[in-house]
Amino acid sequence: MGKNLTLNLADNGYKVACFDLDQSKIDAIVSQDDVERKTPEPRVVGCRSYTELLKNLKAPHTIILSVPAGEPVDHVCHHLIDAGVQADDIVVDTGNSLWTDSVQREAKYKGKFIFFSTAISGGEVGARFGPSLMPSGDPYAWTRIESIWQAVAAKVDPNTGLPIESYEVGKPVTEGEPCTTYIGPVGAGHYVKMVHNGIEYADMQLICEAYHIMRNGLDMSPKEIAQTYRDWNKGELNSYLIEISAEVLDQLDPETGAALVDIIMDKAGQKGTGLWTAVSALQVGSPAQTITQAVFARSLSSFKKERVIASQKLSGPDPSMTHVDSKETVIKQLHDALYCSKICAYAQGFQLMDIAAKEHGWKLDFAEIAKIWRAGCIIRAIFLQSITKAYENDEHLENLLLDPFFIDQINKYQSNWRRAIASATIAGIPCPAMSSALSYYDSYRCEVLPANLLQGQRDFFGAHTYSRTDKPESKKYHIEWNSSDRAQVIVKR
Amino acid sequence: MGKNLTLNLADNGYKVACFDLDQSKIDAIVSQDDVERKTPEPRVVGCRSYTELLKNLKAPHTIILSVPAGEPVDHVCHHLIDAGVQADDIVVDTGNSLWTDSVQREAKYKGKFIFFSTAISGGEVGARFGPSLMPSGDPYAWTRIESIWQAVAAKVDPNTGLPIESYEVGKPVTEGEPCTTYIGPVGAGHYVKMVHNGIEYADMQLICEAYHIMRNGLDMSPKEIAQTYRDWNKGELNSYLIEISAEVLDQLDPETGAALVDIIMDKAGQKGTGLWTAVSALQVGSPAQTITQAVFARSLSSFKKERVIASQKLSGPDPSMTHVDSKETVIKQLHDALYCSKICAYAQGFQLMDIAAKEHGWKLDFAEIAKIWRAGCIIRAIFLQSITKAYENDEHLENLLLDPFFIDQINKYQSNWRRAIASATIAGIPCPAMSSALSYYDSYRCEVLPANLLQGQRDFFGAHTYSRTDKPESKKYHIEWNSSDRAQVIVKR
Repeated sequence: MGKNLTLNLADNGYKVACFDLDQSKIDAIVSQDDVERKTPEPRVVGCRSYTELLKNLKAPHTIILSVPAGEPVDHVCHHLIDAGVQADDIVVDTGNSLWTDSVQREAKYKGKFIFFSTAISGGEVGARFGPSLMPSGDPYAWTRIESIWQAVAAKVDPNTGLPIESYEVGKPVTEGEPCTTYIGPVGAGHYVKMVHNGIEYADMQLICEAYHIMRNGLDMSPKEIAQTYRDWNKGELNSYLIEISAEVLDQLDPETGAALVDIIMDKAGQKGTGLWTAVSALQVGSPAQTITQAVFARSLSSFKKERVIASQKLSGPDPSMTHVDSKETVIKQLHDALYCSKICAYAQGFQLMDIAAKEHGWKLDFAEIAKIWRAGCIIRAIFLQSITKAYENDEHLENLLLDPFFIDQINKYQSNWRRAIASATIAGIPCPAMSSALSYYDSYRCEVLPANLLQGQRDFFGAHTYSRTDKPESKKYHIEWNSSDRAQVIVKR
Repeated sequence: MGKNLTLNLADNGYKVACFDLDQSKIDAIVSQDDVERKTPEPRVVGCRSYTELLKNLKAPHTIILSVPAGEPVDHVCHHLIDAGVQADDIVVDTGNSLWTDSVQREAKYKGKFIFFSTAISGGEVGARFGPSLMPSGDPYAWTRIESIWQAVAAKVDPNTGLPIESYEVGKPVTEGEPCTTYIGPVGAGHYVKMVHNGIEYADMQLICEAYHIMRNGLDMSPKEIAQTYRDWNKGELNSYLIEISAEVLDQLDPETGAALVDIIMDKAGQKGTGLWTAVSALQVGSPAQTITQAVFARSLSSFKKERVIASQKLSGPDPSMTHVDSKETVIKQLHDALYCSKICAYAQGFQLMDIAAKEHGWKLDFAEIAKIWRAGCIIRAIFLQSITKAYENDEHLENLLLDPFFIDQINKYQSNWRRAIASATIAGIPCPAMSSALSYYDSYRCEVLPANLLQGQRDFFGAHTYSRTDKPESKKYHIEWNSSDRAQVIVKR
């Protein structure tokens, strides 16, 4: 990451001083620069100490950290203080930090230097040729960083909403809209990135469920499914994740020559950001069930040994899904199911950011956030252009599902969405994320939910009280249920 | 709670000294005792201060707190210290405390007194006539508390597993198995109670979803549905929650004479324990999706204003579910769906306790835990006798779904379970908890989950590596995906 970000900066005309505790990494960057640069003198200065690093930077210093989240960040900050970093110097954390850590750090280092946070998405490639950057913190610091991030960020064609990509060394993309915007106070950027990753979890899980159904329900080969994804990639589902899924499914195992996907262990790991998103959603009371189901799907996958035993003992139906509809029909249903579920997953993510923003007093510009996700990051997709438009048309949009375009889309595709889930349900192929997305849609459009019975139950056994639909909601009621229940006897006595 | 617990203790022959900052509450208990006691002298001594309270108790003192969770607990503890509580005195917290708070408190008050935690379920009635008690903490303290809790606890007929209930003042139930058992080190009891409440959330949500489907999909009246629940209460679903659901649905509104359920505002509140369960499940990596869906269903219900607007704008299918199957058939399907979903919700809860126990070094006896939930608590049900047997037959049972009895039950009922969910899916009636329970079952019995594709995706864009099914799992692999992806170009160069 650090190396690629450095070379990206260099390609954009910046002279960069670098330091790493592991000297070999610095040597690698310097020699990489020697290979790539077309200029006579080096664009990268390798430093042997924090002090040397500061000496090689113009004051006021701008220092960009590319270290693992957590303790290492503070470790480096303390060394920078010892090395003489000044109050008007800026230290930018670009790791996958927990957003609350960033908030604490800004306060902790106040007066010593300006701690600024920038969450980055795009992995190795993004760092090298243009990532999506989510900066947050001191607004003055932003005025000093803005031009740097705009230069290195991924670029988008504002008309099509598609990435303008160049992966040629020394030829950075200079036109188009840069995928970076000031998100808000410190931590806001990392929160938004956290939700980005939560959406990424859901997106990946949904693609996997479609794969699972095609594989087991339609008996399709990895190659066939890869081709299907390539077809889907031409339409509404066009996205980086669909594109690489096709690549993964086409990949053969160098050792056995079989489809690699069949040899990869089906136990998914997670780096925590999806988990953080789900926990935050629970804590602020934002119904992000599809994102959460994606996290649980990963944890369930880790019980491989138990699953193998269970697969012998627990019965299920015939998985074939072509009894009622033809293979082609089911594939079309799956496309629509994936698309509608994806809309709901993103709706949940934006709803979560909205609720969190209100709770933390942030002013998030959702059109801008959707814009900077159109290129550089893992969830980049044509789809984000539609989300951008939705929030440009109505910045106070309460939920993506209420945007006229998405209303129309789900209207068009929902019957296939329902068919696909119903058939998978009958066939015994799990689709937790897809079905949670549908119940999110059906619950959200439900004027009266059965929570009225639930409130009745709660008042019955716990005297938790309830509100009435025909009275001011603030007024709470409790009745003596006309039943044999002893609670009443006691209350009466 | 405190008042009822006091009178319960008195009925069981204990002389109780009470203190409350609100003197009127003490007066109420004392005069209540005057009404109820058949003995010449009072069984309850009202005290005017912490010091007086201690004076009226035999040393070493055993003090039972019935105060709200959180700060109030420490507040009382500090006053007890000032009042001269001794190192061998026991202070028992019976509130809905967060289990980690109990752990900290035991350490914090070490040497000053023995902090012991006992989570209680059963509400007002349970406290008065027999709750389910989940004690945890210092084993020596337990030897002093055990007989007290056994006396006041709810009792169960060991043969039928059904509660032996007496709600007659002064006539406590003395035979049967008491619903209390030593859970483990401090905090363990509150953790188990937290999971109990998480299961309770799921149980209630599942009943509400069945109601919702009967109401909207089968056009049944609250009275009709109440009768259905009463019928169901005679079989496998026999439980306190089904019983009171019938009562709630039969309740008429005193003001309008209409069914009260139709007047109760459909926005559900929560006290946090369900939320804590979901967060803990995410953190320890235990797939408790049905419990979590129940929490999200409550948070989604709170968006009433938005839902009313959405109900006008978002389209959906005809909710009628009698096009394919008859009303009677769908009702039977719903019964089976509720039962199978309930099995999965409980399986998730016990799996969570199992994983948490391993993480925290607790030895939880799941047969004993199931036993003490058979009476007194909110989720009491005949069903818990089957769970008790499952763990008595195999204390190392990895998952309830692997118990022969439950394997057979789901085998019998799963096709109806699937039909009910599929029909509700087509009809546009949300059943998030039921369908998450089914995908839990179908994922758990799945030998190969699509997490293999997911691991491929993660290695593709993030070089996160993967394991192979044909090699030791500890060995991690990363390949240079034979694609046009630029990541590879960089890795190679």
